[in-house]
Amino acid sequence: MADNELQELRSQVDDINLQILDLLNRRARLASEIGKVQQRLGTTFYDPAREAEMLTNLERENNGPFSNETIKALFREIFRASLALEEKEARQKIRVMRKTADEHTVITMPDGTQIGAGDFSVISGPCAVESVEQIDEVAGALAARGVRFLRGMGWKPRTSPYDFQGLGIEGLKIARQVANKHNMYVISEIMDMSLVSQMSDYVDIFWVGARNMSNSFLLKAMGQVRQPVILKRSYGATIEDFLYAAEYIVASGNPNVILIERGIRTFEKWTRNTLDISAIALLKQESHLPVVGDISHSAGRRDIAIPLAKAVKAVGADGLMFECHPNPPVAMSDAKQQLSIPEMHALLDEITDTDKVLA
Amino acid sequence: MADNELQELRSQVDDINLQILDLLNRRARLASEIGKVQQRLGTTFYDPAREAEMLTNLERENNGPFSNETIKALFREIFRASLALEEKEARQKIRVMRKTADEHTVITMPDGTQIGAGDFSVISGPCAVESVEQIDEVAGALAARGVRFLRGMGWKPRTSPYDFQGLGIEGLKIARQVANKHNMYVISEIMDMSLVSQMSDYVDIFWVGARNMSNSFLLKAMGQVRQPVILKRSYGATIEDFLYAAEYIVASGNPNVILIERGIRTFEKWTRNTLDISAIALLKQESHLPVVGDISHSAGRRDIAIPLAKAVKAVGADGLMFECHPNPPVAMSDAKQQLSIPEMHALLDEITDTDKVLA
Amino acid sequence: MADNELQELRSQVDDINLQILDLLNRRARLASEIGKVQQRLGTTFYDPAREAEMLTNLERENNGPFSNETIKALFREIFRASLALEEKEARQKIRVMRKTADEHTVITMPDGTQIGAGDFSVISGPCAVESVEQIDEVAGALAARGVRFLRGMGWKPRTSPYDFQGLGIEGLKIARQVANKHNMYVISEIMDMSLVSQMSDYVDIFWVGARNMSNSFLLKAMGQVRQPVILKRSYGATIEDFLYAAEYIVASGNPNVILIERGIRTFEKWTRNTLDISAIALLKQESHLPVVGDISHSAGRRDIAIPLAKAVKAVGADGLMFECHPNPPVAMSDAKQQLSIPEMHALLDEITDTDKVLA
Amino acid sequence: MADNELQELRSQVDDINLQILDLLNRRARLASEIGKVQQRLGTTFYDPAREAEMLTNLERENNGPFSNETIKALFREIFRASLALEEKEARQKIRVMRKTADEHTVITMPDGTQIGAGDFSVISGPCAVESVEQIDEVAGALAARGVRFLRGMGWKPRTSPYDFQGLGIEGLKIARQVANKHNMYVISEIMDMSLVSQMSDYVDIFWVGARNMSNSFLLKAMGQVRQPVILKRSYGATIEDFLYAAEYIVASGNPNVILIERGIRTFEKWTRNTLDISAIALLKQESHLPVVGDISHSAGRRDIAIPLAKAVKAVGADGLMFECHPNPPVAMSDAKQQLSIPEMHALLDEITDTDKVLA
Repeated sequence: MADNELQELRSQVDDINLQILDLLNRRARLASEIGKVQQRLGTTFYDPAREAEMLTNLERENNGPFSNETIKALFREIFRASLALEEKEARQKIRVMRKTADEHTVITMPDGTQIGAGDFSVISGPCAVESVEQIDEVAGALAARGVRFLRGMGWKPRTSPYDFQGLGIEGLKIARQVANKHNMYVISEIMDMSLVSQMSDYVDIFWVGARNMSNSFLLKAMGQVRQPVILKRSYGATIEDFLYAAEYIVASGNPNVILIERGIRTFEKWTRNTLDISAIALLKQESHLPVVGDISHSAGRRDIAIPLAKAVKAVGADGLMFECHPNPPVAMSDAKQQLSIPEMHALLDEITDTDKVLA
Repeated sequence: MADNELQELRSQVDDINLQILDLLNRRARLASEIGKVQQRLGTTFYDPAREAEMLTNLERENNGPFSNETIKALFREIFRASLALEEKEARQKIRVMRKTADEHTVITMPDGTQIGAGDFSVISGPCAVESVEQIDEVAGALAARGVRFLRGMGWKPRTSPYDFQGLGIEGLKIARQVANKHNMYVISEIMDMSLVSQMSDYVDIFWVGARNMSNSFLLKAMGQVRQPVILKRSYGATIEDFLYAAEYIVASGNPNVILIERGIRTFEKWTRNTLDISAIALLKQESHLPVVGDISHSAGRRDIAIPLAKAVKAVGADGLMFECHPNPPVAMSDAKQQLSIPEMHALLDEITDTDKVLA
Repeated sequence: MADNELQELRSQVDDINLQILDLLNRRARLASEIGKVQQRLGTTFYDPAREAEMLTNLERENNGPFSNETIKALFREIFRASLALEEKEARQKIRVMRKTADEHTVITMPDGTQIGAGDFSVISGPCAVESVEQIDEVAGALAARGVRFLRGMGWKPRTSPYDFQGLGIEGLKIARQVANKHNMYVISEIMDMSLVSQMSDYVDIFWVGARNMSNSFLLKAMGQVRQPVILKRSYGATIEDFLYAAEYIVASGNPNVILIERGIRTFEKWTRNTLDISAIALLKQESHLPVVGDISHSAGRRDIAIPLAKAVKAVGADGLMFECHPNPPVAMSDAKQQLSIPEMHALLDEITDTDKVLA
Repeated sequence: MADNELQELRSQVDDINLQILDLLNRRARLASEIGKVQQRLGTTFYDPAREAEMLTNLERENNGPFSNETIKALFREIFRASLALEEKEARQKIRVMRKTADEHTVITMPDGTQIGAGDFSVISGPCAVESVEQIDEVAGALAARGVRFLRGMGWKPRTSPYDFQGLGIEGLKIARQVANKHNMYVISEIMDMSLVSQMSDYVDIFWVGARNMSNSFLLKAMGQVRQPVILKRSYGATIEDFLYAAEYIVASGNPNVILIERGIRTFEKWTRNTLDISAIALLKQESHLPVVGDISHSAGRRDIAIPLAKAVKAVGADGLMFECHPNPPVAMSDAKQQLSIPEMHALLDEITDTDKVLA
């Protein structure tokens, strides 16, 4: 008998569900209309005062059994869903988010070299440019393996003001000259938007570092350059923060953004940071931008570079970044994590089962 | 004109809002009826197959503009709200959560000493019992300051199997004897439910350590003892995890639970863990159980013990736990964080502006 | 001239370096002698009172320029190095740590199936046993793909005491019967050491869950069983904590331990936990035990299961654990992360380029 | 007999200890000499090539029992200690670190109002300037309570480029005008160094936000302004990172820096971030700069504002920052964490037992 009773009650619930469904969709259509009017009026979709007013009305009319708190929570979800619908219609959501499964941003360099088109790209070079000899030795070795993207950092963001801060524009000139010699592209970090014009003559791809990931002025300036931009995830940023940072660049006019995951800060002490491999999987799934994994700054140690490189490739990243130095123990920064040239060869041997990285 | 149009559309939305409100509450009443039938039938409220069926129905009937995904998300919120209502009615929510602002669990010891009644309680003693002399010296000094709760650990949970694991039952016997001498209560950690009967003769308050916070078998066993239980937050647990762990004890029959916050694991390296002071504020606000702050295991260093003790008191905790050892540098465990006896005096001088800790 | 002066000063430093080197090694030989005497006396190597005495002596004799603090810090390093040497000689360091590059623990099951011998093992099954039908359907599908290890959980550790806690011993009996039918091995979680004898008749591999990783009583009990043990990393544990937990089991007599990485708690919100892929690389490098990656509890979402599985394989893990349920949306626990049977097939198709998982 | 033997061996160790002590100090004196020569030569103290050479020498001469690895680790500690000594002598260590117990940086405003001199300062205002009316209402209420520091943000760093970014320079002009009316000081965030001159006319104290904490170009620019600077800890920064960021400003010429702790990112979900109360204690202990606690951005919820404010005061902070808005539910940003004006009064009632905040 209880079973029959249950059946009857459930069929009443089903009926109410469908009525709520109908009202929700009618409400969504009205919200969509309102959105269009707001666009004509030039106001934003989000109107907190109006929301507060609606919540107050509901609270006044609510006789339970749901508490006012519950009712308000449910309606806030409805408001959020309506807002999302309006925003979607207005600008088809966030630009960096994938709309269809086969949407892919491909970065094409002047000679046709691509990032994000299916091949696994390698970006490498020393932590910072220290001298012509140093970077020439590394660049030559990398170029011989078909690596086309040279890490050529003139400025080094450092925690302490007393640590080596890079050779500045001189370092960048060295990187340019060496890259030209070996037919490579220079990737170099920009630390402030005042450096844009000065750097533009020497740089093929701008790099925005982890410490500047949320520097909206710099991000907007990167929306104005003609070069592609590599954006590094801050060690304190969520995936969502990271995608919004990329959105600043893309929304400012530059669609050629590459995302680089470099580890987040956690309680683990055996690695400098924790490489967030799931973030690479999620970034590839949710965004159409190319994604690269940095195994040097995440691990902070070179002894696990090979397995991490394999994991980065296997999870579906478009490329790999690692630091390489002719003599890591005497490097002026990040000595523990840079690979020596023989270690670089060993790593590339392992990840290039196909000949794609090799010219 | 757009303004008029907006006004008209908004009034239609208001109307729909009220219809949805009415349907939600009717739905809630039906769910409540269903809950009662389910109780008679002895089934659980949560019925995922039924939910899946309702979602399928809604998906079939949905013509947009809300996507199926949005509709399902909104209805899942509605299901969750209904379920919460049913559960609330059935058992008035989670037992450890405060229902009214003035609800407070007060722990009363045999001689009338209380924890949670407004005074600021102090629990102290060495990290572990090492010898009669060691604990007697500390206990004597603490008792002279009016401290009534002696940390008397027989077993020490240790990360490495090769570290000192405590004197076991012998340590507990020593703690009992010393506590009796100084008119103190013994608080001692239980590491496995097989030790309950053996420990019961010596212990006034059972202590469940951070490593055992999610050991549901031990928690349920703690629901069966006559002594109060101090439950320590694991360094990896959220506040919600912590409250649910307490719920295991209370739901198993023992209402006398004291919560102790001891720091969570974060990326910060200058402290062993990060004392989560907001957790103390939230635990006091959300739960009626007494809350104590442990400034030794959180900081892992003694030099900031005094400011942390003041913060713990100021934020509204019911008490403080710190380790105290006659000769910290030679302690068999946690040497860096235990206070010496003079340091203990200095700390108590600072936090006992009133004479409440003193008998 | 400054150059000559520098040269001269440096040669004096070189000379002192060699004298210090000689003294350090002489000191190490003495410490080793002392260690042998201590072993005869049955005392521990670590003698904090003796260390305190030596530090006091040094402080008294120190005239700078190094501060007492620096001198004490340097000597504490020397003490630690000596202690490490003694301990190494006494028990050849921690048992679970690899001594040579080719040291590998291989788990061999009664029919010769191995974990850790080079093949990539798959462990799968539902989050918990819910019914004969449920687990039989999954087990049949898995067995058809050559999967030999069935997740057959009778008990489910849950955050809330009101959540489904598993069918207990009945669930385990069901798992046994189904595993026998499909020629599989049962892996099942033990939640308390009191269950050892009861479970032993039904279980082929014991599973120690994340919540019990630091339960030393249970770990020691696992040292006494004849079956292999899978030990799961707690979401709050460092790699070092994890290895020490394994050491408890091995030091208690059971060398057949498998490590399973399942994600750590971080600030990232798009995944339930953060799969620590570097931890797998480091565990494989530092320990000889087999290592498995759990992609269900780490991600907490099924949509990135395939890329994560590939990463786990590529980084060098010995196997993979994922949850699989005939109808994930209605699963009684972990609904969002369990794979359906078709999803399981898709995943196995991707990671079994060779036919190794297939019988 | 073993005891005698032990005694004899230990006395030999004591003898060697003193010889090592003597050599370490002789080595330190030589390193100090070398440091002076290097300063004359204009080279840096840290010379990795020289260190590599010394390590190679030691490795060649080492015959054990200490392994080469141990010897190198010990000598790296000695090198580090020598380097620290040289650096200390050269520039008396890091400028922001306290050298003596009574060293305190006090910020003195034009009318003599001070931060860091012992009184507990309050900084408050809305999250961002939205209109004259909004900030005037808040400023008036705050001024009536004796609060002198008005949060007057023209620019708002936001995660999403589509969120409200502030009124810019117009907002700042409004803040200035309102502050003048109520005799308050304007504190306002600078987001890029290009804004320095534009903002200087309106701002009494520059604010560097969490997202810019590691923006070394901006930090150096802040070293050149005449106003004091409030530097906010990034949610991803360690205490050490934070102090080095302050060092950039101080080393660039501006000694008037105020540190503000605002919570770090952890796995806890009931608060937006975790207020790191121990960091305040450590910053006060290790640095001479004033330290302020931000209870709005750390908690992300207003309901625990009062206990957190009490904790911040009790732990020894020099001041408190909280957001206050005339109508929090409709605030354009951070609606959940801003206090209403009555809530502000309740909070100030609780923390101003003395009349210090009141003029």
